[in-house]
Amino acid sequence: MQQVAREESMDIDLLVRRVAEGSIVIPKNANRDVKRPAGVGLGLRTKVNANIGTSTAYPDVKDELAKLKAAVDAGADTVMDLSTGGDLTDIRRVIIERCDVPLGTVPIYEAAVRVAEERGAITRITADDLLDVIESQAKQGVDFVTIHSGVTRESIARLRDQGRVTDVVSRGGAFLVKWILANGKENPFFERYDDVLDIARRYDITLSLGDGFRPGCIADATDRAQVQELIILGELVKRARDAGVQAMVEGPGHVPLDQIAANVAIQKRLCEGAPFYVLGPLVTDVAPGYDHITSAIGGAIAAMHGADFICYVTPSEHLGLPTVEDVREGVIAARIAGHAADIVKCIPGAAEWDREMAVARKARDWKKQIELSIDPAKAKEIHDQRSAGIDDVCSMCGELCAMKVVEEYLGKKA
Amino acid sequence: MQQVAREESMDIDLLVRRVAEGSIVIPKNANRDVKRPAGVGLGLRTKVNANIGTSTAYPDVKDELAKLKAAVDAGADTVMDLSTGGDLTDIRRVIIERCDVPLGTVPIYEAAVRVAEERGAITRITADDLLDVIESQAKQGVDFVTIHSGVTRESIARLRDQGRVTDVVSRGGAFLVKWILANGKENPFFERYDDVLDIARRYDITLSLGDGFRPGCIADATDRAQVQELIILGELVKRARDAGVQAMVEGPGHVPLDQIAANVAIQKRLCEGAPFYVLGPLVTDVAPGYDHITSAIGGAIAAMHGADFICYVTPSEHLGLPTVEDVREGVIAARIAGHAADIVKCIPGAAEWDREMAVARKARDWKKQIELSIDPAKAKEIHDQRSAGIDDVCSMCGELCAMKVVEEYLGKKA
Repeated sequence: MQQVAREESMDIDLLVRRVAEGSIVIPKNANRDVKRPAGVGLGLRTKVNANIGTSTAYPDVKDELAKLKAAVDAGADTVMDLSTGGDLTDIRRVIIERCDVPLGTVPIYEAAVRVAEERGAITRITADDLLDVIESQAKQGVDFVTIHSGVTRESIARLRDQGRVTDVVSRGGAFLVKWILANGKENPFFERYDDVLDIARRYDITLSLGDGFRPGCIADATDRAQVQELIILGELVKRARDAGVQAMVEGPGHVPLDQIAANVAIQKRLCEGAPFYVLGPLVTDVAPGYDHITSAIGGAIAAMHGADFICYVTPSEHLGLPTVEDVREGVIAARIAGHAADIVKCIPGAAEWDREMAVARKARDWKKQIELSIDPAKAKEIHDQRSAGIDDVCSMCGELCAMKVVEEYLGKKA
Repeated sequence: MQQVAREESMDIDLLVRRVAEGSIVIPKNANRDVKRPAGVGLGLRTKVNANIGTSTAYPDVKDELAKLKAAVDAGADTVMDLSTGGDLTDIRRVIIERCDVPLGTVPIYEAAVRVAEERGAITRITADDLLDVIESQAKQGVDFVTIHSGVTRESIARLRDQGRVTDVVSRGGAFLVKWILANGKENPFFERYDDVLDIARRYDITLSLGDGFRPGCIADATDRAQVQELIILGELVKRARDAGVQAMVEGPGHVPLDQIAANVAIQKRLCEGAPFYVLGPLVTDVAPGYDHITSAIGGAIAAMHGADFICYVTPSEHLGLPTVEDVREGVIAARIAGHAADIVKCIPGAAEWDREMAVARKARDWKKQIELSIDPAKAKEIHDQRSAGIDDVCSMCGELCAMKVVEEYLGKKA
């Protein structure tokens, strides 16, 4: 907590108070030493999460370790291991060992993969299976877990009544819908929420209350199914706080530009100020290959209105598992969104960073401009390739550089 | 006008009325046949402009023709030739010949380059030089021209009083500041604005009233210099309308997230509903190499609030002259911003496009998804590379695909 307060220039007493009231969470497993801890919530820098993890098509952990490195090097504040292919326990062990930032998981993935292998169908998962997986992952050192406790018989009924274009696009949400409807029983994460809270408290892991009904397309955004789930998540935030467990809430998804502010406002109200962890939101469905951009647009707007934590989206979203380069692009795009919001959230140091860059730009100090870039290697690469041997100005305007042209008349800035 | 009305699904009478009142412009030189004309303004699809053009470091027109093709292929609605290197008249001739969309220029560039060569200093430009260049470019067939008539002694005085971090970052604006201060005279584009209008009317070219004082960094946004210039531009819009000349207004630049809506609102009010043509706005200064993203964020917000026309920004902005690939990336990023806004502007067909994509995604119809992508080639490339031989689902989730998992329970959509 000391480290977070120092890095964020937040008064330690204020930080302690906000963690106690639940408007800030600091995901950190009691059993694990996180070298670069991160606080998420009110008054703190907007954080960025990068998802990595194997799939059945790409089960090699080596690729994922390369993505882990790329994500953290590019400035991801947390990483989630969403592996579903290969030896999941071992993959997670290796990732935890090498991960300097808080690590999150979605435990139902492991339960689903294991039970599907052993018993032939996801629907044969038991409530104990789910709790066992959470506990075993907590023991391994996971810092935060996504639990889709808001996918209940009540919210499913509203989903069916609503009618949607893309129904359910959250994997965890989909498993639970299938389980609930096949078994005719209530969601174990909901029914045995007290047991979930008990594990979370024992290991001091943070709950990330997943939005199983996040909209998967613009047409489904902010519908009754989504808001019903959010109401339930708000109640579960309250129960987590009463049990001394840190909780944040996950959010959409695909949302048109004019509904993003409302999404943040209702989350903050319904969930009593719990940190809001958004996936995107993507502001259009039609740009596969560029969804790091569609989500940077939505993420910036969400964060400006109070979202605290942005899950990156990579250029290969909707098309396939990301490559290492996709991970890097995704992290930088999400960081741009978060930083643009931090300027207007008045986060200490945010506007100052831009001002320093502007001063360096005015001075045409290329060394300083590159140093101050959000991705110095990329900025240097482009500048070097296109500098055409010019030093003082860039190759776009050359000696017609506007800033240079007026310098003698309007004066040179320090 | 018929063609624009048909393509935009706008009633022809409404279109005619809006062109007459000035809330829509259709840039098209009377001497030129534009294969793909574009209307810009109220109720029309948000348009995207791509800047191309040589510089002294890269004077080869061949590169620029490749960029012209890349821009139009990627969906740019208009192109501006901002060449400042090589034989400008000939470069423009070749570009106009091959340009199927409306073409714009900034005539003062040619005047500045020519006079600097012939007489050694930009300050030796005469008012007649400027008018001659506008006329000669109009004769060549240029459809719209940027004229920085709002850089006046009055607005320069306010700029100086304001004090800025990056002063002037518009090239045209910088030339005029230098000219005005060196010669102690008023801006010829302002003083002889009636002559400018006369040329514009004779060739039916559209004026794009340039913002010479657009902010070049977050810290300079929406300051008294910028707003003073905008007031003057509003007066000049009125004079253009009285003279039967179409006019739009250019806008920032670098603007923090929370000032973008205000920028659009004051432009619309001060300029009496004239189409607003924004450059970005870029929502942070610190991301050179990714300024297509920083500006897509700002562009989407600006367009959502009523901006009509987005000038693309490429990844190499602030670093060097763009490559062909940069042009492509820049156009797509700006189109994403424009389209995301068109969804909430209720532009006919915009939300329908997203819905079609969502339906194809739910059906896991890859052929259709790729067809419907804003950049089908890019989407296909990523999908093919990462499909790992899977057909029905993608390599991200494989058989754990959420949409597939719930299909038997929630039903399959058409």
